[in-house]
Amino acid sequence: MNRLKLKHCLETFLREDVGDNDWCESLFDQETYGKMIIRSKQTGCFCGGPVITEGFRVLDPSITVEILAAEGEALYPGLDIASIQGPPSALLQGERVILNLIQRMSGIATTTQQAVQKLNSDHTRICDTRKTTPGLRMFEKYAVRTGGGYNHRFGLYDAVMLKDNHIAYFGSIKTAVKQLKDRVGHMVKIEVETESAEQVREAVEAGVDCIMFDNRTPEQVAALAGLVPPDIITEASGGITMDTLHTYRNTGVDYLSLGLLTHSYQAVDISANACTGKEVKR
Amino acid sequence: MNRLKLKHCLETFLREDVGDNDWCESLFDQETYGKMIIRSKQTGCFCGGPVITEGFRVLDPSITVEILAAEGEALYPGLDIASIQGPPSALLQGERVILNLIQRMSGIATTTQQAVQKLNSDHTRICDTRKTTPGLRMFEKYAVRTGGGYNHRFGLYDAVMLKDNHIAYFGSIKTAVKQLKDRVGHMVKIEVETESAEQVREAVEAGVDCIMFDNRTPEQVAALAGLVPPDIITEASGGITMDTLHTYRNTGVDYLSLGLLTHSYQAVDISANACTGKEVKR
Amino acid sequence: MNRLKLKHCLETFLREDVGDNDWCESLFDQETYGKMIIRSKQTGCFCGGPVITEGFRVLDPSITVEILAAEGEALYPGLDIASIQGPPSALLQGERVILNLIQRMSGIATTTQQAVQKLNSDHTRICDTRKTTPGLRMFEKYAVRTGGGYNHRFGLYDAVMLKDNHIAYFGSIKTAVKQLKDRVGHMVKIEVETESAEQVREAVEAGVDCIMFDNRTPEQVAALAGLVPPDIITEASGGITMDTLHTYRNTGVDYLSLGLLTHSYQAVDISANACTGKEVKR
Amino acid sequence: MNRLKLKHCLETFLREDVGDNDWCESLFDQETYGKMIIRSKQTGCFCGGPVITEGFRVLDPSITVEILAAEGEALYPGLDIASIQGPPSALLQGERVILNLIQRMSGIATTTQQAVQKLNSDHTRICDTRKTTPGLRMFEKYAVRTGGGYNHRFGLYDAVMLKDNHIAYFGSIKTAVKQLKDRVGHMVKIEVETESAEQVREAVEAGVDCIMFDNRTPEQVAALAGLVPPDIITEASGGITMDTLHTYRNTGVDYLSLGLLTHSYQAVDISANACTGKEVKR
Amino acid sequence: MNRLKLKHCLETFLREDVGDNDWCESLFDQETYGKMIIRSKQTGCFCGGPVITEGFRVLDPSITVEILAAEGEALYPGLDIASIQGPPSALLQGERVILNLIQRMSGIATTTQQAVQKLNSDHTRICDTRKTTPGLRMFEKYAVRTGGGYNHRFGLYDAVMLKDNHIAYFGSIKTAVKQLKDRVGHMVKIEVETESAEQVREAVEAGVDCIMFDNRTPEQVAALAGLVPPDIITEASGGITMDTLHTYRNTGVDYLSLGLLTHSYQAVDISANACTGKEVKR
Amino acid sequence: MNRLKLKHCLETFLREDVGDNDWCESLFDQETYGKMIIRSKQTGCFCGGPVITEGFRVLDPSITVEILAAEGEALYPGLDIASIQGPPSALLQGERVILNLIQRMSGIATTTQQAVQKLNSDHTRICDTRKTTPGLRMFEKYAVRTGGGYNHRFGLYDAVMLKDNHIAYFGSIKTAVKQLKDRVGHMVKIEVETESAEQVREAVEAGVDCIMFDNRTPEQVAALAGLVPPDIITEASGGITMDTLHTYRNTGVDYLSLGLLTHSYQAVDISANACTGKEVKR
Repeated sequence: MNRLKLKHCLETFLREDVGDNDWCESLFDQETYGKMIIRSKQTGCFCGGPVITEGFRVLDPSITVEILAAEGEALYPGLDIASIQGPPSALLQGERVILNLIQRMSGIATTTQQAVQKLNSDHTRICDTRKTTPGLRMFEKYAVRTGGGYNHRFGLYDAVMLKDNHIAYFGSIKTAVKQLKDRVGHMVKIEVETESAEQVREAVEAGVDCIMFDNRTPEQVAALAGLVPPDIITEASGGITMDTLHTYRNTGVDYLSLGLLTHSYQAVDISANACTGKEVKR
Repeated sequence: MNRLKLKHCLETFLREDVGDNDWCESLFDQETYGKMIIRSKQTGCFCGGPVITEGFRVLDPSITVEILAAEGEALYPGLDIASIQGPPSALLQGERVILNLIQRMSGIATTTQQAVQKLNSDHTRICDTRKTTPGLRMFEKYAVRTGGGYNHRFGLYDAVMLKDNHIAYFGSIKTAVKQLKDRVGHMVKIEVETESAEQVREAVEAGVDCIMFDNRTPEQVAALAGLVPPDIITEASGGITMDTLHTYRNTGVDYLSLGLLTHSYQAVDISANACTGKEVKR
Repeated sequence: MNRLKLKHCLETFLREDVGDNDWCESLFDQETYGKMIIRSKQTGCFCGGPVITEGFRVLDPSITVEILAAEGEALYPGLDIASIQGPPSALLQGERVILNLIQRMSGIATTTQQAVQKLNSDHTRICDTRKTTPGLRMFEKYAVRTGGGYNHRFGLYDAVMLKDNHIAYFGSIKTAVKQLKDRVGHMVKIEVETESAEQVREAVEAGVDCIMFDNRTPEQVAALAGLVPPDIITEASGGITMDTLHTYRNTGVDYLSLGLLTHSYQAVDISANACTGKEVKR
Repeated sequence: MNRLKLKHCLETFLREDVGDNDWCESLFDQETYGKMIIRSKQTGCFCGGPVITEGFRVLDPSITVEILAAEGEALYPGLDIASIQGPPSALLQGERVILNLIQRMSGIATTTQQAVQKLNSDHTRICDTRKTTPGLRMFEKYAVRTGGGYNHRFGLYDAVMLKDNHIAYFGSIKTAVKQLKDRVGHMVKIEVETESAEQVREAVEAGVDCIMFDNRTPEQVAALAGLVPPDIITEASGGITMDTLHTYRNTGVDYLSLGLLTHSYQAVDISANACTGKEVKR
Repeated sequence: MNRLKLKHCLETFLREDVGDNDWCESLFDQETYGKMIIRSKQTGCFCGGPVITEGFRVLDPSITVEILAAEGEALYPGLDIASIQGPPSALLQGERVILNLIQRMSGIATTTQQAVQKLNSDHTRICDTRKTTPGLRMFEKYAVRTGGGYNHRFGLYDAVMLKDNHIAYFGSIKTAVKQLKDRVGHMVKIEVETESAEQVREAVEAGVDCIMFDNRTPEQVAALAGLVPPDIITEASGGITMDTLHTYRNTGVDYLSLGLLTHSYQAVDISANACTGKEVKR
Repeated sequence: MNRLKLKHCLETFLREDVGDNDWCESLFDQETYGKMIIRSKQTGCFCGGPVITEGFRVLDPSITVEILAAEGEALYPGLDIASIQGPPSALLQGERVILNLIQRMSGIATTTQQAVQKLNSDHTRICDTRKTTPGLRMFEKYAVRTGGGYNHRFGLYDAVMLKDNHIAYFGSIKTAVKQLKDRVGHMVKIEVETESAEQVREAVEAGVDCIMFDNRTPEQVAALAGLVPPDIITEASGGITMDTLHTYRNTGVDYLSLGLLTHSYQAVDISANACTGKEVKR
C-alpha cells in the first residue's frame, strides 16, 4: 500500500467518526494514560498491521503501537494482535475506525485463503475483480494479496478488458484488438472476454495477452483453455462460488477471478479491550 | 444524504477507478451514444437512486438518467432500476463504481428490511451501529433508513455512549454522567451501557436519556427494561443475530441495535446491460 | 476539538497568509533562532492554547512551545500566555494567524463568561447558536465551552429544531413531530420553536425533548416554562442581550441561547513580542 | 473575489453545517417548492450578493436567485435583499450559512463606510490590515472595498512590511531595505514601520515605497508626513478608533489602517423569511 | 484524459494564477462581453482542445468555446485554434493558464511527431518515460499519444521495471523475476533492464514480458534484439537524441523510449488576441 | 517557498507516481537499508535542496538526507548533490519524482544565471513572467531567484499589469489607471504596457509604478527609457532571446523580462545511484 495514501485515507476515516468534537475527550485527565489490546475473537487470516500502526500515529504521535501478529498470520480466539499505549481519549477515538478496517481486511484475507485452500491447485491462482468497496480498493486488493490471492487490474487505467460491449461496437474481437493496439503501448496488458471456442480462437489470433472465459462450466473452461497457447494467460470468471471453485481445479486455467472475495466476505470478529489508569505518564 | 458530500464522494470513487486514463475511452466515436439499463438479478430492497443520478451527472452532464425504482421498492430478477443514455465511454466508466455502491446499499437495505420483518414488532425498532465501512457511513446509514431501520449515532460527535471503560475510569455511572452533564449541552443524548439491574438502576437515577443492555438474553432484557421508566429509551445490543432477533420481540425494549446490518450483509446482485449504437446523437 | 481537523484547518489558515512565498523569510540566517512571547494586553478569559501549540508545530516541527495560561484562565494586561522558540522566520509567519484565532476565541470565551456572570443563576445555563463564523464553528463552540457556556446543536445533522416553516408546512406541531419520529432514531434530540401557551401544550403532548420559547419576555418565559414537565428541557431565545439577560434569572427556563456569543463579541487584545538573536542554535 | 475559490469555500461552509445528513430534508415532499426572502432588519451597507447567488447554486442548481440590493447599497429595516425560489429543504439548508456570511460582510462594509464618513477627508483613505478572520480574508477584504475602503496587503506574499523585529535584526532600516531590494523584484511594494523622525528620514533615504507611522498622535503624524516626499506613500496605524479617526483628517497622511474594520465590527441583522407551499413545481 | 481529474487540475491551476482576487476583474462592466481568438504563431502539432473547453467552462459556465483545430492537427502561423466568447474578465483570467498548458502540450506533441518522422520506421515505435513534469503526467502522456507516440508505464503502480538496483539486491534477474511473479498478478507487465547478451538471455529464460536494452548502440541493440523471441517486447532506452534516433531504424527493436519527449521539448508559441466590446450581452 | 505548500505539493506529486501500490515495494526486506547518492552529470546552477529534504521526509520520516550542494552552487559532472539513507523501497519511490523536480528547477536556475551573465549589466536585472508550468509556479519562481534573477508578479492577485485590452476598453491609459487607482490600495504596484513614446508619456503622467516597453528594439527601449523619471521602474519585454539580450545592456532599462526562463530552459541531467545492502538497520 502507498503509505502517503494510507495516511490520507486514515485521516479521512478518523475525521468521519470524530467530527468536530468527541464529547468524551474532555472527560479524561490529560496526564493519565491507557493501554489497549486488540484481540481476535475468531479464527481467520490476519490483515491490517499497517492500518493499526499508521492509524494511531495519525491520531496522536505520542501513542506507541506494538504489532504482535504478522500479516497473513493465523488468527484464533484470544490471539493478541496488537498492544497500544497512549492517552485514553486517543485510544478510544481510534478504536472503532481501526477495527472497522482490519475486521473487513482480515475478512477478505480469510476468504481469499479459504478459496486458495479449497481450490488446492499447484497451477491455478485465485484473483480478485474491480467489485471492491468504493474508496477502499487499495485496502481490499492488499488484503487479497495477504490472503494468498492475486490482484486483477486495479482500474480502467492499468490494463484493458475488452467486454461484449466493446466487441459488439467494433463487430469483432480482431478489429477491437487492432484498434486498441494502435493506441496502447507495450506496458499495458490486453484481456478479452470470450464465451465460445470461436471467440477464443479469434482472441488468440488477435494476439491478446489474456483470455477470459466468461460464465463457463469447468468442462467448458478445460476445453477452451486447451485452445490457448501457453504464452497467453487464461482466466475463468463468472458464477464461481466457494462451493464450486474446486471443480475448476483440473481445468488447466491460469486464474479464477472471484468477485465474492471483496463483496461477499464475512468480517472477522476482532475486538479491543482498553484499560485506563490514573497513573501519571507524561 | 448531504448532496454536496455525495457529489464529492462520487468524484473520489470515480477517480479511484478511472485513474489518469481509461484506455478504452479513445476507442469510441465521440458522436455515437449508448443506452444502459441497470437491472436487478435478485430479490431485495432497492437503495441507491441518488447515487445513480448524481454519479452519472458527475461523470458527464450530457448523460440523462431515468430512475425506474423508488427507494425501498421491492427488487426481483429482471426489474429495471434505471435507464441511462449518453456517450458509451462515460456509461462504461460509471458502470462498475455505481454498481459497487448500489449493490452494497441495497444489500444493507435488504438485510435491514429482513430484520424488521423477522422481529415483527409494533414496538421495538431495529437500528444500526458505528460498525460501518470507513468512508461510507453516510451511505450505509441512509441504506439502513431506506430498509426501515433507524440510525444510532453517526459518530463520537453527535451523541454520547458511556461504555465500561468510561465507567471504570470514573468509578461509577453516577459520577461519569455527572461529569458529562457538566460539559454537554441539552441537544446531545447520553446513553449508558449496562450489564446488571444494579447498573440499570444507577443509570436511571443518573438521569440518562437512553440505557443500553449489553449482551443480555431476551429474558434479561425484559427484566431490565421493566426497571426503566417510559421516558428513558432502552436498547438491547450485542450478540443478536438474524436467527435470534425474534426472541427479543416481546421484551418491551425500544431498540435492537445490530452491527450485522452494515458489516455482515450480502450485496444484492444488480447488473448493467449496455448497448451502444453508431447512430449520431449530438 | 478534533485534533486532526484542528491541524488541517491551521494548515489552511497559514497557507492563506503565507501564500507561495514569505518575502521576508530569506532575510533571516537559517542558523539563528528567536523567542516570542504571546502576552495579553487586556482582561478577559483565555482560550486557544491548543491553537498555539498545534499552529507552530504545523509550521515547523523544530519550534518549541510552552503554554503558560490554562484554558479559561483570567487574562490581565501583561500576562504571559505562551513562550515560543524557533527560527525567526517561522515565528513571524505564525504570529499573525495564531493571534487572529486566539484573540477571537478569547473574545468569545470572555463574552460567554460575562453572560454567565450577569445571569448569575444556579439553574439556567447559557448556550450558543448556529450563528457562527463559517469555517470556524469547531473553534467557536469550543470557546463557548471554555467560557462556561454550553453548546446548542453543531449543525443540521446532530439534532433537530422544528421552526415555524416546518410547522406551517405540516399544519401542526403534532404532525410535524410525528413525521420526524417516524424517521429519526433515539439518539437525536428534537426541539420545537413555540410562541404561545397553545403551542407549548401541543409540543408537550407531541413528546419533544426540548421546547424553545421564541422572542418572549421574561414574564412570558416564566409562564410558558411552568407548562412544561421537568423531563422536557426548556430554552429561551431571541432578542436577549447582555443588558437584558439578567431579567431571565428567575424564569425557571433551563437554557438561554445567545447568538451574540459568536457574532457580537469583542476580540481580546493579545500581542506577540519577538526578539531574534544571532546566536547559533542548531 | 475569485469565483472558483468562492465556490470552493461555500461548499466547505455548507458541508460544515449540513454534515452527513439534514434530518429535516426528508420531511419535505420533493415536488413542492418554496420561496425565501432575505431582508434587512437594520440600516447599514450591503455586501454579499455573490455569496447568495453562488451559495444557493452550489447547494442545488435548480434554485433561482434574484438579487435585489446592489453591492454597497444602503440597507434599512424591511429592505428586500434577495428573493430565492426552490426546493424548501435546499432553501433551509442554505439559509443559516449564507446569512452568517452576509451579516458579517455587511457588518464590515458598514463599519468601513462609517469610518470613511467620520474621517471625511478628500485626501486620506481608510484601509484594512491582516487582522482578519482565518479562512475568510478574501471575503473580508472584499467587504472593506465594498464599504469604500482600500486593502492593505493580503498576506506575507504580495508585499513587504518591515517591522521592528526585522530592523532590530539588521541593525538599521537602511541595511534591512538593502537586503530586501537585493531579493525582491520590481512588482512588490516595500513598506517600513517607523516611530520617529530619524527613522522616517532613514526610510526615505533607503527608498521604500511606503512609510508607516506606528502608534503616533495626529500631531506626530502630521509632522512625520511632512518629512516624506510625495512619491512615497504614508500610512498611520495603531491605536486609532472610530472615535479618534477624525483627528487624523488634516494630517496629510495618505492612509489610515484600521484593524477594527475586520475584528471589531458589528454584524448587520439580516434575516430570511421562508414560505413553503405544496403546489407542484417540477 | 480522465475528465474529472482534468477539471480538478484546471481548478487548481486557475486558482494558482488568480489567487484571492484579480485586481482587474472589477474594471470591466459586467454586462459587456468579449471575444478571444487562440491562434498559433508557429508550425507544430496541436494538442490541448479539451484543456481549452474545460478550462473556460470551469472558470465561468457562461463562456462559449468553439474548437477550430483537431487534436494532432498541423499548426502554422496564423491558424485559428479556438474562438471563445464571454465576459472579458473571465477570458483574461483564463488566457495565461490555458496558454501555458497548451503551448507545452503542443510542444510535446510536436516533438513526438518529429521523433516519429525522423525514425521513419514501420516497425519501431516511439514511447515516453516517467521523466514528466510533476503534477502533469496525465497531460504530458496524452500529448505524447496525440503526437503519434506511445505511453510507457504511468507510474510505479501499473507495470514493473526491474532495474540494476533490484537485480543487484536479488543477485540475479532470474531470482528477482521469480520473486515478482510470486506476488504480481497476470495483468501487470514485467520489464527488465539489461546491458549484455548474458542478461538478455537470462531475462528471456525468466519469462519477462519486455526487455529493455539500456544505453546500447544501434549495433548492440540489433544484436540483442536478435536474441529475443517475438512474443517478448523489446525496448531501447538511454542516450538516444533527436539526432541519433534514426540510427535505430533497422535494429528491429519494438520501442525507443525517449525522456526528451517530456523534459526537453520546446513549447509551441500560441497566443490569444482578445477584443472586448461594450455591447450589452446578457 | 512556503514549506506547508511545498509539503502538500510533494505529497501530490509522489502520489501521482506511486498510485495505489508500488509493485516493487514488497520485494525488499523491511530490515535492510540502502544509500542513494544524487549526483550531477552536467555543469549548471543547482536548485532544489529543500525539495530533496522535504520530499524524502514526506515519504518516510525514517529517511535521513544530507544536502551536499548549496542552493545556487555550480554543478559539474560527478558532483555529489545529496546523500540519502533509508529503506530501499522508499528511496526508489522518491527518486524519480524528486529528480524530475530538481532537474527542471536547476535547469531554470542555470538558464537564469546564463541570462544574467550574458546581459552582464550592473544596472539591468533579469526577471521572469507568468509563463510558468501550471501547478509549479512557486517552484519555478524560486528557481529564477536561485539563478540570480528576480520575480515579476506571481499572479493576477499581487500586482496589476494593464495590457492593450484594458487600455482599449477604457480608451486611454489615463482613464484605465484612474479607474484602477480608485480601487486598488497602496500596496499593489501598477504597471502598464506601452509601445510608443506617446503611450510612455501618458503612463508617466498617469502616475504608474512601472512602465513596460513591449516588443521594442534596444534602440527604442533606450529612447523610451529616457522619457521615464527615475522613480518609475522600466521593463523591456517581448521577443528577447538568449542571443539578443546582451544588446539591451546599455539601454538603461531596469528589468528585462524573459518568458524563456520558465518555458524554454533545458533540464539539467542529474541522476541517482542507489546501492542497497542486506545489513540490518532497525
